[in-house]
Amino acid sequence: MSDIHALTRQLQKDNGSKIVLLVSDGLGGLPLEPGGLTELESAKTPNLDKLAQQAELGLSTPVLPGITPGSGPGHLGLFGYDPLEYKIGRGVLEALGIDFDLGPNDVAIRGNYCTLDAAGNISDRRAGRISSEAAAPLCEKLDKIKIPGVELFVRHVQEYRLVIVFRAAGLQGDVADTDPQKTGVPPLDPVARSAGSQKTADVAREFLRQAREILKNDAPANFLTLRGIDCKPQIPPFQEVYGTKAAALAVYPMYRGLARLVSMDILDAGQSLDTQCERLKENWEKYDFFFVHFKYTDSAGEDGNFARKVAKIEELDAAIPKIMALKPDTLIVTGDHSTPCKMKSHSWHPVPTMIVSDNCRYDGSTAFGEKQCRMGGLGMFEARHLMLLALAHAGRLEKYGA
Amino acid sequence: MSDIHALTRQLQKDNGSKIVLLVSDGLGGLPLEPGGLTELESAKTPNLDKLAQQAELGLSTPVLPGITPGSGPGHLGLFGYDPLEYKIGRGVLEALGIDFDLGPNDVAIRGNYCTLDAAGNISDRRAGRISSEAAAPLCEKLDKIKIPGVELFVRHVQEYRLVIVFRAAGLQGDVADTDPQKTGVPPLDPVARSAGSQKTADVAREFLRQAREILKNDAPANFLTLRGIDCKPQIPPFQEVYGTKAAALAVYPMYRGLARLVSMDILDAGQSLDTQCERLKENWEKYDFFFVHFKYTDSAGEDGNFARKVAKIEELDAAIPKIMALKPDTLIVTGDHSTPCKMKSHSWHPVPTMIVSDNCRYDGSTAFGEKQCRMGGLGMFEARHLMLLALAHAGRLEKYGA
Repeated sequence: MSDIHALTRQLQKDNGSKIVLLVSDGLGGLPLEPGGLTELESAKTPNLDKLAQQAELGLSTPVLPGITPGSGPGHLGLFGYDPLEYKIGRGVLEALGIDFDLGPNDVAIRGNYCTLDAAGNISDRRAGRISSEAAAPLCEKLDKIKIPGVELFVRHVQEYRLVIVFRAAGLQGDVADTDPQKTGVPPLDPVARSAGSQKTADVAREFLRQAREILKNDAPANFLTLRGIDCKPQIPPFQEVYGTKAAALAVYPMYRGLARLVSMDILDAGQSLDTQCERLKENWEKYDFFFVHFKYTDSAGEDGNFARKVAKIEELDAAIPKIMALKPDTLIVTGDHSTPCKMKSHSWHPVPTMIVSDNCRYDGSTAFGEKQCRMGGLGMFEARHLMLLALAHAGRLEKYGA
Repeated sequence: MSDIHALTRQLQKDNGSKIVLLVSDGLGGLPLEPGGLTELESAKTPNLDKLAQQAELGLSTPVLPGITPGSGPGHLGLFGYDPLEYKIGRGVLEALGIDFDLGPNDVAIRGNYCTLDAAGNISDRRAGRISSEAAAPLCEKLDKIKIPGVELFVRHVQEYRLVIVFRAAGLQGDVADTDPQKTGVPPLDPVARSAGSQKTADVAREFLRQAREILKNDAPANFLTLRGIDCKPQIPPFQEVYGTKAAALAVYPMYRGLARLVSMDILDAGQSLDTQCERLKENWEKYDFFFVHFKYTDSAGEDGNFARKVAKIEELDAAIPKIMALKPDTLIVTGDHSTPCKMKSHSWHPVPTMIVSDNCRYDGSTAFGEKQCRMGGLGMFEARHLMLLALAHAGRLEKYGA
């Protein structure tokens, strides 16, 4: 596989142009019946349809045909980082999801409160799905644990879920989960799977020793298991590989976290598309590239609520004129994956995508939807190539070779 | 990345069939307005359209989506050599462009005459764009420089541009440019960027020492800078990897040079499509594969002259019956990249391509143009796979595996 970033480092040029990457999470969908329309095709989207008539449409494959991505790989692909090369551990994703600013010396861990019986065996792997109200104070207690030479953070996430971060030089993340994935047995010890991670395993063991003492009277949450132990991945910064100064406008912390992983600046997005568009306008002159994230198409898809996903797409459509009023040199509308209401989950289906710029080979599309994208000028392409197209359309890539 | 040539070496067979690869340089274009036609779609091309009805159409991606290729990478891709693996340096391309027959022990350099002031600083990086008439005799003087153990060639190109070739065993091309890219400073010394290129750097230094003495009274061209110092790339010969005896018919030296890089035979093409077609006929029995290059679609695109590009495509169309009269088993019509008049430059847009043979899965196309190519049977494909299709359609590839 060719190294795309070796190429973009060589070819990048700064012509002052502006690119907006508008990601509607889980945008792609499915018709409920043969002959039916998808969510996007069902929605009334006069603004997106008007853009489609001056755009190139296509379908983006997030990872590989048939592979359903999580949010992490889905976004890394859109940002042009091969999601099969750059991997984001569960603990890291959980930390990103609560806006925890991971540093280069951090190991992040997803914790689950659990219930131990008198014999020390796990009787409930989720501590009776303890309420957030009850769990949060336990996290505060654990946050006070001291381990010499290590900075330690414990943060509540939701119900029985928490995030633990160890910060110290020389920590590696190759330590096995301590959740045995069944009840009636004791939790596992943290075991290093390679020599470089022995220190992390030792720290985790000491952390669990103290936690067991602190939580002993807090049944059903009288202990915890550790999962997805991992370092922050080493990802070359977006600005270095593409030569664009980039900012993220995302309402949900997870997506700010993903943008932070590639070293975008994180702007205060407010709580809605309206505030996102306002902040886009306010910051227009300060950046070359804007990642704008819209969550609700995915949420509605996950809920299997076709009518709501349609309504959310229409809400997105209504924001288009505000973005176009800023006259971006290149606008891309896409998703990180499909989330068909019919499946109530992320899926592998390729994602409707549109590039709007002055250098489009207008493909005769009349509306933005899966069927027209399949016939569009971009064809079917790998998500990790989208940034190349974005930069090309914005005039930000020199010719390759003479 | 799979090694295509390992496969073609294994599967090639000689069934005596004939293939013509007709490359219309910069063929792909753009509509000027949404809903408009491209140059190719605007041209009246009855012959190409008739072929399209017995062909498979598609769009070729020269390098990667969004990557605009120069002529070198564009043609290497069409010849089936991965343009990200085989790189052609500036000096090599410049030497190819004047029909210089580079050998395996050659290092080629692009030279620029420059003006040095009394302090030895560069006051003009292009020697006042000295005329070719004035520059050519200077090149003849430099061509007489003697360096022990090295054969040396200096050739005038155009105005302030020249080519220098060092020929000796053990020369490598990893030497930095001596052009400081600004005025008011002295030219740089040639510095080897790796140990194996020290000899080349030493030869370059001695060459510049003598050149400074020879040119000292020739202001404004009283010195020169060296750029794009590089060896001829090691490219496996076309005949060895594909099993076809191949000939090139190109009016412009650059394209003869690119064909020479992959060890095609270079035939005298004359000065027009007419003479190219005559020579094609004369040499028909002597070769299996013919690369026929038509330059003017690119030139018109670079000039932004839509009407002229249309006219040049129509000129190409008129030559089709002469080629078809020879009854090639496979004819391919394509380009090395797009050169949209709208952009007045090479671009990344995929290139309209057509394969004509008896084994086509006729795709219902009615005319040769970008939109029909987008819907065609070849789909969107990487240029480096085109030779596989050419050989397959000509019956020149065995089955892979039992």
